[in-house]
Amino acid sequence: MTEISEAGVLEREHQTEGVFAAALTPMNDDLSADHAEMARHCRWLLDNGCDGLAILGTTGEANSFSVDERLAILDALVDAGVPARALIPGTGCCALPDTVRLTRHAIGHGTAGVLLLPPFYYKNVSDDGLFAYFAEAIERIGDERLRVYLYHFPQMSAVPFSHELIARLLAAYPGTVVGLKDSSGDVDNMTSLARDFPGFKVFAGTERFLLPMLKAGGAGCITAGANVLCSVIGKLYGLWRTKGGDEEIEEAQARVTELRLTLERFVMIPAMKQILAGHTGKPGWATVRPPFTRLDPGKAAELSATVADAGLTLP
Amino acid sequence: MTEISEAGVLEREHQTEGVFAAALTPMNDDLSADHAEMARHCRWLLDNGCDGLAILGTTGEANSFSVDERLAILDALVDAGVPARALIPGTGCCALPDTVRLTRHAIGHGTAGVLLLPPFYYKNVSDDGLFAYFAEAIERIGDERLRVYLYHFPQMSAVPFSHELIARLLAAYPGTVVGLKDSSGDVDNMTSLARDFPGFKVFAGTERFLLPMLKAGGAGCITAGANVLCSVIGKLYGLWRTKGGDEEIEEAQARVTELRLTLERFVMIPAMKQILAGHTGKPGWATVRPPFTRLDPGKAAELSATVADAGLTLP
Repeated sequence: MTEISEAGVLEREHQTEGVFAAALTPMNDDLSADHAEMARHCRWLLDNGCDGLAILGTTGEANSFSVDERLAILDALVDAGVPARALIPGTGCCALPDTVRLTRHAIGHGTAGVLLLPPFYYKNVSDDGLFAYFAEAIERIGDERLRVYLYHFPQMSAVPFSHELIARLLAAYPGTVVGLKDSSGDVDNMTSLARDFPGFKVFAGTERFLLPMLKAGGAGCITAGANVLCSVIGKLYGLWRTKGGDEEIEEAQARVTELRLTLERFVMIPAMKQILAGHTGKPGWATVRPPFTRLDPGKAAELSATVADAGLTLP
Repeated sequence: MTEISEAGVLEREHQTEGVFAAALTPMNDDLSADHAEMARHCRWLLDNGCDGLAILGTTGEANSFSVDERLAILDALVDAGVPARALIPGTGCCALPDTVRLTRHAIGHGTAGVLLLPPFYYKNVSDDGLFAYFAEAIERIGDERLRVYLYHFPQMSAVPFSHELIARLLAAYPGTVVGLKDSSGDVDNMTSLARDFPGFKVFAGTERFLLPMLKAGGAGCITAGANVLCSVIGKLYGLWRTKGGDEEIEEAQARVTELRLTLERFVMIPAMKQILAGHTGKPGWATVRPPFTRLDPGKAAELSATVADAGLTLP
């Protein structure tokens, strides 16, 4: 069990920057979450280049799990000793009561914050409506320990965060709305957010843009790719933090980018699970919930060859 | 309480065609569902032109409610005497366990069927993945009384049903996958589905295309607009069923279309709730869950004038 002080984990202990993996969720054959293997994977990520973990996000297939399953996954990780101060679980749902319930639970565990998708069923909704949703959620949660990271992923949620909406939320909830993950793939958008909102913790949603983001004053990256590229990305971030030579840093980013683009030739979630099945020797790792499908044998062989060609070795 | 026979409500009693309202969900000030008012609204719809009700769909703001809230709404309607055989609740969620739980509950009440959205968070997924999702859901539900209507609404779900996927589901689950609501607004798509899959109950998702659908062998319509246009749409369908004169039928469709297009000048859900607030004298009807917002006073006045100009009177 993690120790939680009376006032919750102290804020200064919370991980608020660096390399976060959008952690995968390993599953049993019946598609239930494999809690023990997930705790092991989380510890492995933290031991090999990750500063924190955004569990139960897009890559974690969180929207394919019920609220009860999501609560149980976080409970199990904390029980297994994964430090809550390093976790930013995804808790944003279409239904306000679900968002409130998951977020209160995360705060109770003392997580570093929560990553909130906008309500993503209704499309073309107004900024007024989205503001009303977040305002209602924050007020119902009603906890000063709440730290919200907004999750901008227009290709998947189809509900973008405009800069105007972000500015309005920051003005209304300073100290509560503290950051954003930008998975748009639009480096200009993410670097301009980092520049336009000083102090706001903006994370690139892909390791491809970690260096441009750090140069723009961004907080780091929260990425799917870190599930298998953790050490390579961690090396890049370490060079930046320790003020390594410019050329060395650019080379590290180039290597990270090369490997990321290699992964993107495949459907990322099943492909990374397939890689981990090989790495851990646990074939169950390849299991995904529908609407994903595991790689067929031909594609798995192609992936294996591609990863070998790229010289990717996991720690 | 509705009476449910030992084997559930007999199938021949189930409503499987005609005019279905995608029923709105009235709310209390705290955004909880107003069960009593919803039951009253459902009875009013069935008394005024609707053959059935697709509750807890897009128009019912279902994805803004938790699973527990959705279960309680259906329980309350059935307890209040709304006939389950006339109901097709929306029970399709992103998470398989939620879909299974809601669907089993609906079957237990003897509903006419369930309307299943595809899992709508992940985009650009394969037909194999969507097939796997529905196959897994149907097998986990494991009840021969299950009657699935697929819910094709690409503008909102951003996950379309291809004709190939529909054909595959029909072949794998004949008698279980029985129909589809097409809210694409693409009249060619919906009429071709009705023609290409004889016996498959295809509903237009807008009353604008009720007549073309009936001519193509479609089952009817399941529409948001029926919440306020029930009697006008019901009149059109009655003329069709009683083999009214061609000219009279075309005129009835033209009137339905005119009124529907009038409503579409506004954000439909808040606008129809505003109309019902006026009609019932219950201002609480205007309440919506975020990300929707209620009409501001200016827009509400514009709606009122527009509806009056169009000559719309509610029964």
